[in-house]
Amino acid sequence: MTPTASHFSPGLDGVVAARTAISDVDGHGGHLVVRGFAVEDVAPKVTFEEMVFLLWHDALPENGARDRFREDLVDHRQVEDHTLHLLKEAAARAVHPMDALRMTCASLVSRDTGPHKASAVAAAGQDALRLVAVFPVLVAAYHRLLHGLETVAPRSDLSQAANFLYMLRGEEAPESFVRALDTYWNTVADHGLNASTFTARVIVSTDSDVISAVTGAVGALKGRLHGGAPGPALNLVFEVGTADRAETVLREKLGRGERLMGFGHRVYRTRDPRADVLGTAAQRLFDEQGDREIYELARAVEACALDLLREHTPSRVLQTNVEFYTALVLHGLGFPASLFTPVFAAARVAGWTAHCLEQIAANRLFRPESMYVGARNRTWRPAGQRAVSEQRR
Amino acid sequence: MTPTASHFSPGLDGVVAARTAISDVDGHGGHLVVRGFAVEDVAPKVTFEEMVFLLWHDALPENGARDRFREDLVDHRQVEDHTLHLLKEAAARAVHPMDALRMTCASLVSRDTGPHKASAVAAAGQDALRLVAVFPVLVAAYHRLLHGLETVAPRSDLSQAANFLYMLRGEEAPESFVRALDTYWNTVADHGLNASTFTARVIVSTDSDVISAVTGAVGALKGRLHGGAPGPALNLVFEVGTADRAETVLREKLGRGERLMGFGHRVYRTRDPRADVLGTAAQRLFDEQGDREIYELARAVEACALDLLREHTPSRVLQTNVEFYTALVLHGLGFPASLFTPVFAAARVAGWTAHCLEQIAANRLFRPESMYVGARNRTWRPAGQRAVSEQRR
Repeated sequence: MTPTASHFSPGLDGVVAARTAISDVDGHGGHLVVRGFAVEDVAPKVTFEEMVFLLWHDALPENGARDRFREDLVDHRQVEDHTLHLLKEAAARAVHPMDALRMTCASLVSRDTGPHKASAVAAAGQDALRLVAVFPVLVAAYHRLLHGLETVAPRSDLSQAANFLYMLRGEEAPESFVRALDTYWNTVADHGLNASTFTARVIVSTDSDVISAVTGAVGALKGRLHGGAPGPALNLVFEVGTADRAETVLREKLGRGERLMGFGHRVYRTRDPRADVLGTAAQRLFDEQGDREIYELARAVEACALDLLREHTPSRVLQTNVEFYTALVLHGLGFPASLFTPVFAAARVAGWTAHCLEQIAANRLFRPESMYVGARNRTWRPAGQRAVSEQRR
Repeated sequence: MTPTASHFSPGLDGVVAARTAISDVDGHGGHLVVRGFAVEDVAPKVTFEEMVFLLWHDALPENGARDRFREDLVDHRQVEDHTLHLLKEAAARAVHPMDALRMTCASLVSRDTGPHKASAVAAAGQDALRLVAVFPVLVAAYHRLLHGLETVAPRSDLSQAANFLYMLRGEEAPESFVRALDTYWNTVADHGLNASTFTARVIVSTDSDVISAVTGAVGALKGRLHGGAPGPALNLVFEVGTADRAETVLREKLGRGERLMGFGHRVYRTRDPRADVLGTAAQRLFDEQGDREIYELARAVEACALDLLREHTPSRVLQTNVEFYTALVLHGLGFPASLFTPVFAAARVAGWTAHCLEQIAANRLFRPESMYVGARNRTWRPAGQRAVSEQRR
């Protein structure tokens, strides 16, 4: 069953691997639809808990369902002693925060109870709830441990975002911080069939459990090519340092053929609707509190970059992308760059689990073909009769 | 960029997702080629260490390289204290062996040192060595812990297979056992782009590390639909119980429309070359030692099943498959069914890592499309104005 070359799709580019009712990425039009809502209509207005409910249940909850769902998440917030021990042990070895998240995610055990469809679906729902509830707790606890601080126990009276900020800081955060984090998490909770989401669907398609699938997704998110990492955009702002240096620094970079991190997107060719949402969120956050100086600097760098990019590549519209404003929001919340990807994971776990539940509901094993391009007709010889030249290609 | 329906390939069936020089599954011809060798030519003749070398380096090693490679693997056999603690803690909770393997695999930390290609390739090679060396150690240690036994420290003078058997049993195994396990591991070390191998390639394609990729693969292998699990075939033999009951039991099953586990294969339509290799290995193992009675029973069940299947589905050739003989070999080695999938993982990790190294050498991010089939044009309303009927589709 060796397939012919004509079917080969490097990177599966252009291949549709799933039907989904979760989100629609329209890069040409510059739209992101999440469960029927334009992302800019819903992300700034709902709590993250409501967004998770929307992703899983295809509707926003009315008051009663919203409150029950919030309680369900709170009930799954506690971290067991053995998980905490694992985090402490990892911190003692100074393990990277994404590796620590992979380890602790993998250490959870699915509620999966067997091959029966009904119980598997129920177990998947329980696993999803557990993962979404516990991810920010794991991220906050590990961050403190890594910096030599005692962990802070979660509080059941706080929302997902407020509790995360509380566990990180050891004190309650201002409401403006909570709103900014809710908006960020809502904006990036799902984004079509990116590599980590695809990983989760492939794993769960073997009838494996949602814990295993999300562990794989965390591993995929770790990769530099995944996208969503806003660190480099912030580095650009820091590198410029003061507004008067922006044009010189950016012109030098463009002259050396470097990419300006924070501008342009692989998929969104005209406008990234998430950038609009987060640009507004950043402005509101820095208006109320935060390092006003870095905000002004970032906007000056942005204005200069957009001018130079128009001059440099007139044929292509390069807009400020989601990473640029994400960097501003997360910096405004006081997060160091080492927290950026883990905090992103605490949002995207909602999308991963939604995709797992959707995959389970109408499963088909992912089993693509490979095309063999290797050697043929070799025959075994005893070790003493093998040529040294055979050792490496 | 919403793609059209014509590109949708459910389960990526028939889509070629990778070029590979590692193995070629020819289901129609009944051939499995591993790095240019027919599996039946190489699997019974080499050690597992040689098979790993072949998978990674595209050639069998001559004497010197073989000895150095074996030492390299031995050097990576030790398990750190924190990993052992994790296994003990999992055993205390009676965690499933595949979950325990996922946890401990995830708890390893990649040698990955940064974005530079050369160091990334070197780190990937180190991670691969570590994973292949340590998987059987983790499986054996966990099996003993789960059964309330002290773990046995690995021995550096034993081969990969001999050390695994020693760590499981607490005493050296007969040479016939070592040869049978080598043959089994060699036979199933790689098999094209199955779901777990595909998972590993997708994860590593984000430029993530090999530990993360293999952790994802372990999660995918856990699924009931993955294939490779020989437990059900052995259950059939036990269910029959005595040879004289075979026809009655099997006829009843076929009459109820049940599948006879251990016969037929999704891909191999005529002959599964792996079944031939493992059938011979089982025969040799039981000739030398082992539960002769269960072997005779299994062969009687097999003969009866093949007769009945020819009668029942004359249009289709259903042969004894690899799972049937795997079950015999692993049972002959004294392994309980709970060890079957972990022992399979200890072989397939060689294939997973080979595919990771191949993917890294010519990487392209896997980023397929999804097709949106969900709601459109919803608008946000405050929670109090949402209909209860919106709650579920």
